[in-house]
Amino acid sequence: MGKIRMTPAVLEQIADRFKVLGDPTRLRLLQALRGGEATVSELIEATGLGQANVSKHLQVLHGSGYTSRRKEGLFTWYRLSDVDVLQLCDLMCGRLERDHLAQQRLLGRER
Amino acid sequence: MGKIRMTPAVLEQIADRFKVLGDPTRLRLLQALRGGEATVSELIEATGLGQANVSKHLQVLHGSGYTSRRKEGLFTWYRLSDVDVLQLCDLMCGRLERDHLAQQRLLGRER
Repeated sequence: MGKIRMTPAVLEQIADRFKVLGDPTRLRLLQALRGGEATVSELIEATGLGQANVSKHLQVLHGSGYTSRRKEGLFTWYRLSDVDVLQLCDLMCGRLERDHLAQQRLLGRER
Repeated sequence: MGKIRMTPAVLEQIADRFKVLGDPTRLRLLQALRGGEATVSELIEATGLGQANVSKHLQVLHGSGYTSRRKEGLFTWYRLSDVDVLQLCDLMCGRLERDHLAQQRLLGRER
């Protein structure tokens, strides 16, 4: 796994970051940010989630370095820190898709 | 995120898979399987973990499709289902590495 030595402390940190992605609400926020920068209000509108919920999960995402933010007047704009997080989600999504297809094949539902 | 429509149910499934990676012991087992197929005994030896612990976490990894297995006589051989899971770990490791470097720079420790 890269150049870092996989000490128990490092594995713990990597696990913690995966844990942050282990929540559907946070994945929804990351997905909403796929289109570009957004304010908290825009994220509330895009996801249909409540303000407290969005704020809480943005804090967690931000704390793990998944998002960057900048203040402009009264607004805070959030964006994805980099495209890696999308790659992570895409890889996971690809796995899911393959497993679904394999299951369909198993059940003989595929034409 | 790929071709699947991101319904709440799909996001839940993706989150569940990330959750499985959110555990240092499971990451350790995946790392141990990076070298190729291994039996439970070999994994116990490679990781220094107890048998009950290894068996429990292998079940979880297997249940989420991260590993494949085959029986040969008295032994069960485990292997990574595909290389995607290593890509996931490598991406996450890369993130961590970059963040560490950024932090070192911030603290002025870099030469």
